[in-house]
Amino acid sequence: MSDQGDDLDLDAPRELTPLKAKRLKLHTQRESIAIVNERCTVARSEGLTERARVELRIEERQAIARLYQVDDTMVATDEIGLSETAWQKLGLNEGDELTLHHPRSISSLGGLRRKVYGHRLSAGHAAEIFRDIVDGRLSDVQISAFISALASQPPEVSEIVALTQAMVAIGDRLTWPDNVVVDKHCVGGLPGNRTTPIVVSIVAAAGLTIPKTSSRAITSPAGTADTLATLTRVDLSGEEMRQVVEQQGGCMVWGGGVELSPADDLVIRVERELELDCTSQMVASVMSKKIAAGSTHVLIDVPVGPTAKVRSQAGAEELAAFMKGVGEAFGLHVETIITDGLQPIGDGIGPALEAHDVLAVLECERNAPRELRQRALNLAAVILEMGAACPPGQGKSTANAILDDGRAMRKFVAICKAQGEFRRPERARFQHVIECERSARIASIDNRRLARLAKLAGAPRSPAAGVVIHVNIGDPVEAGQPLITLHGESIGELEYALDYYRMNTDLIEKFAK
Amino acid sequence: MSDQGDDLDLDAPRELTPLKAKRLKLHTQRESIAIVNERCTVARSEGLTERARVELRIEERQAIARLYQVDDTMVATDEIGLSETAWQKLGLNEGDELTLHHPRSISSLGGLRRKVYGHRLSAGHAAEIFRDIVDGRLSDVQISAFISALASQPPEVSEIVALTQAMVAIGDRLTWPDNVVVDKHCVGGLPGNRTTPIVVSIVAAAGLTIPKTSSRAITSPAGTADTLATLTRVDLSGEEMRQVVEQQGGCMVWGGGVELSPADDLVIRVERELELDCTSQMVASVMSKKIAAGSTHVLIDVPVGPTAKVRSQAGAEELAAFMKGVGEAFGLHVETIITDGLQPIGDGIGPALEAHDVLAVLECERNAPRELRQRALNLAAVILEMGAACPPGQGKSTANAILDDGRAMRKFVAICKAQGEFRRPERARFQHVIECERSARIASIDNRRLARLAKLAGAPRSPAAGVVIHVNIGDPVEAGQPLITLHGESIGELEYALDYYRMNTDLIEKFAK
Repeated sequence: MSDQGDDLDLDAPRELTPLKAKRLKLHTQRESIAIVNERCTVARSEGLTERARVELRIEERQAIARLYQVDDTMVATDEIGLSETAWQKLGLNEGDELTLHHPRSISSLGGLRRKVYGHRLSAGHAAEIFRDIVDGRLSDVQISAFISALASQPPEVSEIVALTQAMVAIGDRLTWPDNVVVDKHCVGGLPGNRTTPIVVSIVAAAGLTIPKTSSRAITSPAGTADTLATLTRVDLSGEEMRQVVEQQGGCMVWGGGVELSPADDLVIRVERELELDCTSQMVASVMSKKIAAGSTHVLIDVPVGPTAKVRSQAGAEELAAFMKGVGEAFGLHVETIITDGLQPIGDGIGPALEAHDVLAVLECERNAPRELRQRALNLAAVILEMGAACPPGQGKSTANAILDDGRAMRKFVAICKAQGEFRRPERARFQHVIECERSARIASIDNRRLARLAKLAGAPRSPAAGVVIHVNIGDPVEAGQPLITLHGESIGELEYALDYYRMNTDLIEKFAK
Repeated sequence: MSDQGDDLDLDAPRELTPLKAKRLKLHTQRESIAIVNERCTVARSEGLTERARVELRIEERQAIARLYQVDDTMVATDEIGLSETAWQKLGLNEGDELTLHHPRSISSLGGLRRKVYGHRLSAGHAAEIFRDIVDGRLSDVQISAFISALASQPPEVSEIVALTQAMVAIGDRLTWPDNVVVDKHCVGGLPGNRTTPIVVSIVAAAGLTIPKTSSRAITSPAGTADTLATLTRVDLSGEEMRQVVEQQGGCMVWGGGVELSPADDLVIRVERELELDCTSQMVASVMSKKIAAGSTHVLIDVPVGPTAKVRSQAGAEELAAFMKGVGEAFGLHVETIITDGLQPIGDGIGPALEAHDVLAVLECERNAPRELRQRALNLAAVILEMGAACPPGQGKSTANAILDDGRAMRKFVAICKAQGEFRRPERARFQHVIECERSARIASIDNRRLARLAKLAGAPRSPAAGVVIHVNIGDPVEAGQPLITLHGESIGELEYALDYYRMNTDLIEKFAK
């Protein structure tokens, strides 16, 4: 080693100049960002440039961050400014000193590239990739390539098994004393299809164990966890979840909180930006959570319709087969039920609006959405029989009785209270009614564009936002009769939604009467 | 529209509260970032959250940025902090007021998703996608999905034509008075293969028009533009490039500066993070620049070797066929030459080190890398004949004469001066010689790992960094004889390179003698 010819001992331990950590209080949604001064000698001597990925180290802790540079006083030359995510990950206190490094080479990039080039993921590569996603070593740009590569190939059971295994391995895994632990999942894409709280209440009231975790919305206006969050606390830890289930037989918590699938929301964040759902990733995500939750018997509901997530009977059967195939590989008994996904299920679309529908069914209100009630009863019936909570053939009558005599609602409130509280969901600040322009008959309802409408109104970010749909397919309507009510927390959002509706008035198609 | 029941007129123009632009002097490598205070009422009332994509507007100008939030004094509640890229794009002055909006929906995402799901890109979708990339409407996460989807399918001429057309359409397009305008391109992957400056000098000295643009490195330790930047100014505008070509017959400029292909470096930035090259994108990128540069006759050099970018004769022929097929669709005469890519061409790998090799050839130094000289002469010979600058069959002798009698070097210096200056490249601050441990014979050299070594040493970010290789395949070597010299601007980088070498001593394989 020579400096203009002079030898320099590379093997002697170098003194790495530490930088003082500065908390920028910058909120980035789980993205680690580091900002150094352009004249920072450490970054210079390490040859680090703007937008580089860097490794931050303090004692035994480390984090990968994206580096930006500033030639201003925001960060001094001996400081390093950090986003909240990086700050929390490193467990820092103001003034702590940390060192800045080139990241060690990311070995999972090899497997990721193989995947991009069309090879099937091996279990080893999948494990590496998910480990690096959870550790924050892979950037969103890299995760995006991975998701896109997965979505670009037809799904295959063995690859989904590898993905599932990798996702189970990086999270916690629950075990239960019971031999039978039931669970359900709906593939989604059907606005307002919020059967979970009803099904869990009925099934737990019947004495079965159902440790249900749900997810936040990916591309939809509300995930079950978003809806539940308007009714109770959902961000329980694994230990808290265990206590609720031991006490009440069931729970309804957000999967992201219990660390059963810690890669999920990092992947979902990227899918959301791409407005993309990926079948392999979806099946692996669902099955890994069921496996991690310790389930033994799982019912998968696949709604089918031209504008649902699954559009054809063949597609639904294929998806059901993937779920069963992956379940089998892990010793789970999986049953699937393919349901009608022609139109929205409840009346409301959006977290709080759907919660109102759920309460109406649980409280057996006269104007509760009938379709939502019926679907929840059907699913509960199958699960009760799967779990042998009633004699074969008596699932329906058992489920009906539990709902109608108030046991389901009492169980629901008890579970909510065990999770922290039970509350009634709020209503949005602004509402706008869209009326029918002329008398007609409802021909069809476009679930996708209706979901988009609810999202433009602010769902799920604003929990009370969304749309309420007042008509069903086949209904006769008169001029001036309400078709849809938009709910929103800001005028701006309602305006975007209304603009969109005006360009898409055919999202509810009408026959002339 | 109702606020707790009261009607509100949505159609009345709303007063959008403007935010004061604050220049954060944040350097992000072309990423537009906006930071607002968490208590900023505008972001709140518009329902915008951290990491959202937002649209900034001032008068008729607009830019899309990624939004972060801060609960600190970095940005006041009536301010919006902007990265340099956003600042420049909006052409702001301190204190200018701008408004913050939800971005209009990104229509190109539809085409992007179709591509992810395995459909071939139509010309219309390709045009939409590239327009949105250049306008900054698509984020890096979205560009990554696009690149990954492209890379995941076998390339196809009609799709590459669509890509090429889209890339040509968004940039400038040059025209020349001459009927014959020649150009060359090397597919790369062969460290040190820096024939361009030599070929351009010979060809221009022979009187042909050769408006050469080159690119920066994607995944390699040096692109031709990186090498040229150590010798002259390369970031010329289209108009400056025209003047140089009119005066000298040829030029050697960076393609990114002349806006012939404005999407290129945004795409390359993502490819770099993925450490990925994509054939369709590469062919489209190359051909679009040739078309935009107004070329009529193009020679493509495809080096083949087990560790070159193209590994097999079949792969090279396929690539050559894509180049020809796309050229044909645009009326270009494309010839290809498949060359030996077994080992590095020059002695140096890294911008300045390769520039030293180029000068050695142009100045006919006795120890100039012979292989580099021979390759440059071969390519120049074909181009001279393609462009009818000499009688058929006399390309080689003509090229030889122009190089050996000093006309090529004089032309090179003249072009450099016309571009702004001619200078000798610098040497790196630190050097470390790796010696052979025992006497042996060189069996093989791994181009990929050698390139990685040069990158770890700091190339191309530090122009003088890289490696010099002192042996060729088949050479006998003695213990203590230099194999490689590492060049770097920082100890840190040399250490990374040396660590890597120690784990990869077989990157130069040796036979026992």
